[in-house]
Order: sequence, then C-alpha cells, then structure tokens
Amino acid sequence: MRRLIGILTFISLTNLFCLNGQTKIDRITSFCKANEREILKEYFDFLSLPNFALNKEDINKNALFIQQMLSKRGVKSQLLDSKTEGTPAAVYGEVIVPNAKQTIVFYAHYDGQPVNPEKWHPAIKPFLPVFLSKPIDKGGEIIPFPAVGSPINPEWRISGRSSSDDKAGVMAIIHAYDAIVKSGLQPSCSIKFFFEGEEEIGSVHLGEILDKHKDLLSSDVWIIADGPVHQSGLPLIDFGVRGDVNMDITVFGPKRPLHSGHYGNWAPNPAHTLVRLLASMKDDEGRVLIKDYYKDAIPFTESEKLAFAKVPSIDKQMQQELGIAQPEKVGTSLFDSYQYPSLNINGIRSADVGEKASNVIPTEAAVTLDLRQVLGTDYLRQIQRVKDHVVAQGFYVIDRNPTDEERAKYSKIAKVTADRGGYNAQRTPMDLPIAKQIIAAVQGATKEKVLTFPTAGGSLPLFLFEKHLNAKVVNLCIANHDNNQHSENENARIHNIWESIKQLSAIMMME
Amino acid sequence: MRRLIGILTFISLTNLFCLNGQTKIDRITSFCKANEREILKEYFDFLSLPNFALNKEDINKNALFIQQMLSKRGVKSQLLDSKTEGTPAAVYGEVIVPNAKQTIVFYAHYDGQPVNPEKWHPAIKPFLPVFLSKPIDKGGEIIPFPAVGSPINPEWRISGRSSSDDKAGVMAIIHAYDAIVKSGLQPSCSIKFFFEGEEEIGSVHLGEILDKHKDLLSSDVWIIADGPVHQSGLPLIDFGVRGDVNMDITVFGPKRPLHSGHYGNWAPNPAHTLVRLLASMKDDEGRVLIKDYYKDAIPFTESEKLAFAKVPSIDKQMQQELGIAQPEKVGTSLFDSYQYPSLNINGIRSADVGEKASNVIPTEAAVTLDLRQVLGTDYLRQIQRVKDHVVAQGFYVIDRNPTDEERAKYSKIAKVTADRGGYNAQRTPMDLPIAKQIIAAVQGATKEKVLTFPTAGGSLPLFLFEKHLNAKVVNLCIANHDNNQHSENENARIHNIWESIKQLSAIMMME
Repeated sequence: MRRLIGILTFISLTNLFCLNGQTKIDRITSFCKANEREILKEYFDFLSLPNFALNKEDINKNALFIQQMLSKRGVKSQLLDSKTEGTPAAVYGEVIVPNAKQTIVFYAHYDGQPVNPEKWHPAIKPFLPVFLSKPIDKGGEIIPFPAVGSPINPEWRISGRSSSDDKAGVMAIIHAYDAIVKSGLQPSCSIKFFFEGEEEIGSVHLGEILDKHKDLLSSDVWIIADGPVHQSGLPLIDFGVRGDVNMDITVFGPKRPLHSGHYGNWAPNPAHTLVRLLASMKDDEGRVLIKDYYKDAIPFTESEKLAFAKVPSIDKQMQQELGIAQPEKVGTSLFDSYQYPSLNINGIRSADVGEKASNVIPTEAAVTLDLRQVLGTDYLRQIQRVKDHVVAQGFYVIDRNPTDEERAKYSKIAKVTADRGGYNAQRTPMDLPIAKQIIAAVQGATKEKVLTFPTAGGSLPLFLFEKHLNAKVVNLCIANHDNNQHSENENARIHNIWESIKQLSAIMMME
Repeated sequence: MRRLIGILTFISLTNLFCLNGQTKIDRITSFCKANEREILKEYFDFLSLPNFALNKEDINKNALFIQQMLSKRGVKSQLLDSKTEGTPAAVYGEVIVPNAKQTIVFYAHYDGQPVNPEKWHPAIKPFLPVFLSKPIDKGGEIIPFPAVGSPINPEWRISGRSSSDDKAGVMAIIHAYDAIVKSGLQPSCSIKFFFEGEEEIGSVHLGEILDKHKDLLSSDVWIIADGPVHQSGLPLIDFGVRGDVNMDITVFGPKRPLHSGHYGNWAPNPAHTLVRLLASMKDDEGRVLIKDYYKDAIPFTESEKLAFAKVPSIDKQMQQELGIAQPEKVGTSLFDSYQYPSLNINGIRSADVGEKASNVIPTEAAVTLDLRQVLGTDYLRQIQRVKDHVVAQGFYVIDRNPTDEERAKYSKIAKVTADRGGYNAQRTPMDLPIAKQIIAAVQGATKEKVLTFPTAGGSLPLFLFEKHLNAKVVNLCIANHDNNQHSENENARIHNIWESIKQLSAIMMME
C-alpha cells in the first residue's frame, strides 16, 4: 500500500510535464486510437440492450453490463437502490486515490427515450447499432464493422437509441478512467462513478437514491456527461440546466366512436375541443398566454448574458438547417429564450389521419406537453397554472376518466395528469474556483475553443444534487448536436466520443 | 317460356292473398327461420374476407364471393368496371320478370372502412366473425356457432368489419330474392343487383361505372340498402343523404425532430400551429366560422320539416347513451342539424402522446377533416372555402411538401389536399307515387311503425345516380343504430338482418 502511494506520488509529479515529448492528453489520444476497435465493439454490445426505464428486465441487463465494464477495469461496483422497490437502480463504483485533494462524481444515465421502430429509417433499427457514413436521413450508408487494422473514420456515425443520449456518457467516463490507467497515468482526484437508470422518465427516484446513499456520494463536484455540444461543433460546458415536467391532457367526446354523418353537427368532437383549449395557451409567436406563466422566472444576470454573448450566434445557421423562416419570439435569440419557461406540445392524437382515417367523431383527444423550468420557476406551481388555465376555459378538470354522472353534468371535461415526475432548473456560479479549474482542464484537452453556457436549454435533474447533497454540478456536453436525440434515427459522431474521453480524463487528472 | 309466364301470372294473382292463412311476409319469415343457420354460416364466410377498397387482391375476392352467392341462386352475374383500369368493379346481376311493370335496382356496397385491429377489443378480430351475446363494449361474450337444431337468438350480435356496413346490405338483398323464390313466391318487378366496391373511399369511380353501363342500369328506382335504422330501433326509409368529402391538412415544423429543451421557445412547433388553425375554424358551440360556409345550404321545406316532426325525438336518449351534456348548437336538434354542412375532425396526429411521447418538437402535424354536404352546397366550392380560410390565417398553401426555398420564405406552410373523392348531397321528393309504394310495402312487412326521413345525416354517393342515370333513389336503412359502423368493434344485430330481408322482399313483391 505504502509502495503504491510512493509510486502514485512520483507519477503525480511527472504528470505536470510531457513524457517523451507527449502530453498526458496525447497519451490518452494514442491509447484510444490504438484500441478504437475494441472500445467501439464493446460499445456496440452496450447499445444492443434495449433500455426504456419502465421495462425492468431490460434496464437490469443494462445495469449488469455496466457493472461488468467496471469490473473488467478493476473497479468494484454496487447497485444503489431507492426506498421504492422495483425502480431502476443507479450503478455506483469508486476509485479512491490516497491523498487526493478532490473527489469528483462522474454522472451519466444509461436509460433511453422510448422508441417507435416504425418511424426509424427502414435500413436501421434502434437496438442494432451500425456504423453509418453520415446521418441516415442525409443519405448515410451502413458501413460493415472494419477488420483488424482498418481505421475507423471519426466522422462516421454510430446509429442506435442512446448512442448519444446517454450511453455515450457512460462509456466515455469509464474509458477516460481506463485510458488513464492503461496509459500509465493516474487520476489526481478520487473518482466516483454514478450511472442513473431513469433519467428519461424524469428521474423519479433519483432524490430518494441520493438521500439514501448520501454518505457514499459526498464530493467536491458532480460532472454530468450528457447532452450535445454546441451547434457550431465547439466543446461546451454548461453550468446550469432547465428543469422539466410532462403533463398529459385528455378531453372527452361521445362514449363510443360515432359516424360523423349521423351525428356530425350535433355530437361535440373532442379533437375540436382540444385544439381550442391548446390554441388558448400560446399566441401565434410562441408566447405562453397562461396567467403568470413567466412571473417567477429569474432573468439572466449581466455576467451570464456576457457568457452567452461570447458564444457565436447560431440562429441563422439553425434556421437554415432546420427550414425555419421565423423563430418564435419568446426571447430575442435562441440563447436568450433559455431564461424563459417553455410550453411544448410533444404530441397530439385523436383517432387516425390520412388513408387510415375514418369518418368518425372520436371518443377522445389527447395531448402530451412538456414544461421546461428555469431558475425561479417551480414545476408544481407551473402545473397548477396550466390546470387553472384549463379550468378558466370552462373545463371540469379531473385526474381520471369521467363518470357517467360527470359526463351528464359537464359539457367540457379534461383529464389532466402530471404523474411521470418532474424537476426544477439548476445553475452553478461560473466563478467558483473548481468551475474555473474544470474549464481550464477541458480547454487543455482540446485544440478547439471551449464554450461555456450559464445554462443549457435542455434538462437534467441537477437541482436534486443541490437539494439532497448540497453538491455543485457542472455539465460537460459530449454528443454531436445533430444526433436526433429523443427521436428516431439517433446517432453519435465518433469524433465526439474520442473528444469526450479526452476531456473527461483531463478533468480526472486536473491539478 | 310461355308456361313459365302462365305460372308466374297465376302466382302473381295469389300473391295478393294469404296462402294457408300465411301472408307472403309470413312465408319469408318462416323460410329465414328454417334456414337461419345456413344463411348466417354463409354470411360468416363473407365477413371473413378483408375488404378495404385500396387492397385490390382482397376486394377481388369479395367480388368473386358475391358472384358465387348469386350463381348459387341461379342469377348470372358480371363485373362492371369503370374506364379507369384497376379500380374495384361493381358486381351486377339481373332477374328479368316478364311483364313486370317496374324495374328496381338494389344497391349495397361490399367494401369496408379501414381497420386498426389494435383498437378492437382483444377478444375479437375485424375479419374473424363471431356471435356475441351483446356488444363487446357492453360486456358481450362470444357464443360458439350453435349446433344444428339450436336456435339463434335474434338479439345476438355478429361481430366483424362490415357486418353492418354494408355487407349486411349485400346479403339481405340476395337473401330477400332467394327467400321469395324458395318460398314459392315471385317478384313483381324485374330485379337488378348492383354491389359497389369502393363506397368507403368516396365512390371514386362510381360515376364512370354508371356512365359506361348506362343501358344495363335503366330502372324506375334504386333501392339503397345501407345505413343504420332509427336510434329508437324503428325501421327507417331515407329519401336523401348528405354528401361528403375528406380533406387532409399537414403543417410543418423543423425539418428534423428537435429536442424540446435545446430548441423549445425558439423553433415553432407544428402542433401548436395546427391547433391554432383548427381552432379558428369552429366556435365553442360547433358552428363553422369559415366565411360563407353555410351560405349555399337549401333549408328544409315545410313538408320536410313535418316529416321530421313525426319522428320521435331521440336527442335526450342519445345524449344519455353517449354521455353528452351539451350538444353542438348548429341546429336546434339532431335532425334539424342535417340541413347544414358540417366540418368534422376525423383525426389529428403529431408525434406521440402519453408514455410513448418524447420531449421533442415534432416535424409535422396532420389533420383529416370530413365536410358533409347538404342540398345546395357543392363539395368543391366548400373545399375552396376551407383553403381560402387557411390562406386568410396567414398560411402559404400548397398541395405537396414544401421545398427548402419555400420553408425559408414562409413561416406558416400548409399542405392541403382533397384527393380521395367526394360528392354532393341528394334528396328524392317523398310524394312521388313510387316513393309512396315503397313506404307502403315496407310498412306491410313489419309490425313496427316505419319512419321516413327527408334526408339522412350520413352520406352515400346518391347524387351520382341522378347525375349519370337520371334515376330516383330511396335508401332503406338496415343495420342497428349502435353498430359501431366505421370504427372498432363493428357489429350487426341479427334481428335487423331478418327485418331487412323481409322489407326488401316486400319491395321486390310490391304491387
């Protein structure tokens, strides 16, 4: 043990310098290059495991796979459960470095968004990872796994659910540590691995897990490896995230589907009822019309605005790339809009359309919304505001299907639920010493200019770390921005995986 | 031949009187009762054939089955095609009665609405007909096909797509003729059978077929056997129908699905765009707000209003049955509303809802509408009014997906199409002699009071018979009103099948 400490101290000192003309990051890069085939082969195996959080059997297989990955690298792991039985466990592992000045928890999540395989390009499948020459919807072609000795082009994509969001995070963290050790280097901090299994359904039990295992999880900072880099392709560190919560609204028409000829003009159509309700929620330029919806939002400080001002604007580029003539006018720019809570229709459904449509008055119409939260807003209060708005539109609001008595009494009935979890926003001040240390480390690991965001537009349950552990949180973005995250044809650009491994190892070795 | 005519003349005279104390209708009833097992067995075989009009192979099998049914009854048949190749043919057969004073064409359609088997009750399948003790959604149970000698309860339902709409029409027409012949009776008129194969997709080629076979199809009246009887359960003859046309509208969001966190509040959401457009089309009480939408409608005459006034109101009963607290206020009652054109959302779709929803900004949102037509309105003019309305809401309207240039130029783009056919309304005056004859014949075939409607709420392409053949048209309703026609769990009440056979045979034998 003493001998080990001696060796570590020695190597620690040499770490400040180049070795054989190579920087530490060069050695990490060389290691990845030399082992790219094996690294990505293991990643393909990981990506072939379906990982929707509500499918317990699937999710357990993913957790076991991660434990085996850690075990192969000599890291002992355990499953951290919540007090609620049967929920996806977090996979935890640790590498305690004697005399380390800092302890850093590295977080990623191994569950993924639900998939609808029919919507994916016919040539690919959500859980059958393949290399693509470019994104499939831009004409990419499938490339067979290269033979030994054939290089892997970093511009290729890996296709599959969670290839970017966020199994890429899990694998980059583990390989960053692995590359350090196998390159003869060592971490400067004690490392804790924490891989969550239900982020995509709202991290319902994360708070419970953090609470229950509070002592195990003490740290100086959490590094969240998740989310896409900047749309310009530049590396990105976020010091905050928006919160999020989903709401489901169903409105009711006749108890059975009706022939639209025999009853049209008489039986109310629930789709019409729903569109009128939804239309009342936002104006033509995207502003939410629900009372006090923006009231609690804490605007960006001057220094936060300054951080964003340093980021090259991508509005015009994205408008062109996405085919948008006129963005919404909630903020003055994409980044500016991140300081306001949003109200988004994730999907709307009533009966069928096109050739599958029948001439019916449907029985129900349903919508799913997501409500992004910002510093200051509380997701439960925002839910209540939406509910109050529905009531103000003349609806009788319940959280279940209506009874016959209620149907007879109320002409407009809405079932409104928000039972899939939710959380608030979080921001970590960018001028903390450890924040500056991280920025420097990441900048040292890449030739590209590292961007820093006071907050991302996306959401992670980061406020939970503050609430339950009083922890600082920093979000290192890892995936390519055009990764189709959360939808069909998700993919990961291989270059971004190597960059993430380098950046994470730099943080693990930072002085 | 001469001898046959002699026999026919003799029987024709006796037809006016009872034979062995039995009326002619009693004999039809007895025949059906004695042969109910065989009749319904053949019907089950018919119902097991999938029959969506756009599936050519399926539809041909149905046409062949009908030809075989006719052939078994000694009726020679042929397929009547349109000038457009590859479209579903009508099945035509005829029985020319020498010296008959009248020729009547009996019409039904053998194609059915599309099915979504997943929406059907798990115990039943659209094309696997079974007996049910009552409708499956009211707790009905499957009853095995009774053994020889076991009676078939007329209150049972037959489950399956088109069991009511409108294979019931096809089988009732053929069995009405069959029962007449096999009961030793004979028709008083020459009978022409005409079974259409694409009614549910808008009778796209019916006009062409009528035109092409004009001479073959000459007649005194067309009897359309289709649609449900009155909601009170009483028999019903309609002297008109509404017309109908479908429209599809798609609005466009970003070119690829976007993460609602990274782009929410900035990238316009097509579902929001669509709901605002649709909300602008109707008010909260169901009235269409599109300019001049009601302008061309010819209101009911006083005598038409009187015919409706004789029909017991079912509004309260239907409100209770369907769970509707407040009907729309287009008309003062359900029947009154039949004189106005309607605008109905058949279905609306954008991405997914509930547990299948992802936190995305979808790329598209789509709606399918149906526009019922009334006497005076022209479906093409009504389509144009909807299009004009969409333009007036600030949309750039096209009939295909937008180009990149159009996306860059227009912030609101709608693809609006109406390419699945359509037709206008039709009404036959109720005081024509042949109309009165038919009413008397049907009333003579049933103990129940026969109701007469100046127009049904539903649609059939009846104006085409007027337009192409200058023919009179009368619609004899046949199915139970709670048959789930056009949607999942369609069923036919067996009682209604026997009643339809009796009523149709009465028309075939009317003096």
